[in-house]
Amino acid sequence: MSGNNDQQLFLGIDGGGSKCKAIIVVQNAVSQEIEILGTGISGPSNPFHGYEQAINSIVESAELALKDADLNNVKLNELIAGVGLAGVNLPVIFDQMSAWQHPFKHMFLATDLLIACLGAHQGKDGAVMITGTGSCGYSYVDGCEFMIGGHGFPHGDKGSGAWFGLQAAKQVLMSVDGLVAPSIMNNVLLTKLGCDNEIALVEAIAGKPAHYYAKLANLVFDAAEQGDEVARRIVEEGAEYINCVARTLWNKQPSRMSMIGGLTSRLKPWLNKDIQSRLSEPLISPELGSVMYARQQLALL
Amino acid sequence: MSGNNDQQLFLGIDGGGSKCKAIIVVQNAVSQEIEILGTGISGPSNPFHGYEQAINSIVESAELALKDADLNNVKLNELIAGVGLAGVNLPVIFDQMSAWQHPFKHMFLATDLLIACLGAHQGKDGAVMITGTGSCGYSYVDGCEFMIGGHGFPHGDKGSGAWFGLQAAKQVLMSVDGLVAPSIMNNVLLTKLGCDNEIALVEAIAGKPAHYYAKLANLVFDAAEQGDEVARRIVEEGAEYINCVARTLWNKQPSRMSMIGGLTSRLKPWLNKDIQSRLSEPLISPELGSVMYARQQLALL
Repeated sequence: MSGNNDQQLFLGIDGGGSKCKAIIVVQNAVSQEIEILGTGISGPSNPFHGYEQAINSIVESAELALKDADLNNVKLNELIAGVGLAGVNLPVIFDQMSAWQHPFKHMFLATDLLIACLGAHQGKDGAVMITGTGSCGYSYVDGCEFMIGGHGFPHGDKGSGAWFGLQAAKQVLMSVDGLVAPSIMNNVLLTKLGCDNEIALVEAIAGKPAHYYAKLANLVFDAAEQGDEVARRIVEEGAEYINCVARTLWNKQPSRMSMIGGLTSRLKPWLNKDIQSRLSEPLISPELGSVMYARQQLALL
Repeated sequence: MSGNNDQQLFLGIDGGGSKCKAIIVVQNAVSQEIEILGTGISGPSNPFHGYEQAINSIVESAELALKDADLNNVKLNELIAGVGLAGVNLPVIFDQMSAWQHPFKHMFLATDLLIACLGAHQGKDGAVMITGTGSCGYSYVDGCEFMIGGHGFPHGDKGSGAWFGLQAAKQVLMSVDGLVAPSIMNNVLLTKLGCDNEIALVEAIAGKPAHYYAKLANLVFDAAEQGDEVARRIVEEGAEYINCVARTLWNKQPSRMSMIGGLTSRLKPWLNKDIQSRLSEPLISPELGSVMYARQQLALL
């Protein structure tokens, strides 16, 4: 199969702090229906944390998705790309990404929040909370965008994977110093990072980015679920922040709210019951939200 | 004046996260007395945060000290240098700095903790707490070194300038989102960083190192001293950590304890009264402690 005029190929990208997801879909010119042909996943793609790495991840995930779709003869310049990225809520980062000499036929750039919200509510108004490497809340109601949190690591993104991982590292270091109670996280964390003492741990985590810390988040939840008091307090503090984000978003009166991102399955059970019960499953994925965005924008050209 | 055989010149370096202090002293061959000839200050010199910057700062501060001493004809290779640096408590960083093809006649490398302790107690046993850009506790009693904290930014160094600055940035961002009470720090921080809104603030602080955040520490203390509740809680949390460090160090039974570093004058009044009352003024400066260390090590050669 190859892209031709009556079967336009679309690329949808959902790029975050730890990975970049790509999806290739084809739109039937007659029915306007779309069909998923292939998907690909590559590495970190938040341009706020590294422009070169982000564009490399986008291209790599697109090529993997083409390969997955057996579209070996299709070139990137045949694809109309909707690209949703973390970090481009900052104007300076949006401008930098917009100036990219991208390899696609067209590129429509949006925040990861917008494309997640479009996907979660299939183009309708609504709100999303993203808890993955970072954390953020977003609503789109009556033409008005609203964003809360998502300020980045280490100064923001409370309740995110990176935040949980950082809290674990802090607590382990403080307990090794005898300043707080030890936790079952201590050995788990040292083992996971291949460290046999505190100095090795400090060397291992020195200067590490958000996606490094995000990989430590699960051990906090594991420990909390095993009854570890230190881990439980961390999880409760992070969950309470996300509760507050949810309440703020509900004040914007969205018709639906979804929670998405890699940490969702771990964190959601710790949210207040009333917050949990009002969450709706996302209807389609953020990367399909990117395709939806590209199709919307294309129609406006 | 120039260095000659009967008047050996010594360079003492105290290098931390925000600045590098150098002192040039001469030792009289007959009396063994030392006389301070000049001093110099340059930029960040913690090799943990950047090796090139650290060695550049060391050389620059040494040249400034020579100039201050009117020793324009003296070359760096005539100086015997005692170099105390933050970060070299990590073996990998110590090894990297030891391998430096330094420009001095001899270089004796030590942690900033050791040279601060040597200086504070003029070579006798004792303990020090350093609260500057970073934070750390150290004792040297009966030939045994003990270190607590000092794990680096952002995962450690609680109660340090960088930690206070980061807490301020976090609180301001959370309050702009309406999730915590606003504080008089908000406008002060935005003004200090030249930002007129939250997005500009997020762009300004993105990826910034410890010494950037350390410059924000004073505004937290200013606000706390003006009765700001949010700032007061931050200061009390940081102070309580330093109280715990002090108690842990007293358990090692040092004969004296001193508190040093750029944040000392702001933080000390917030410590528990019993901790404050047991602190002794440092007898000589860390950079003179570096000279003392170099002279000790030279005697062992």
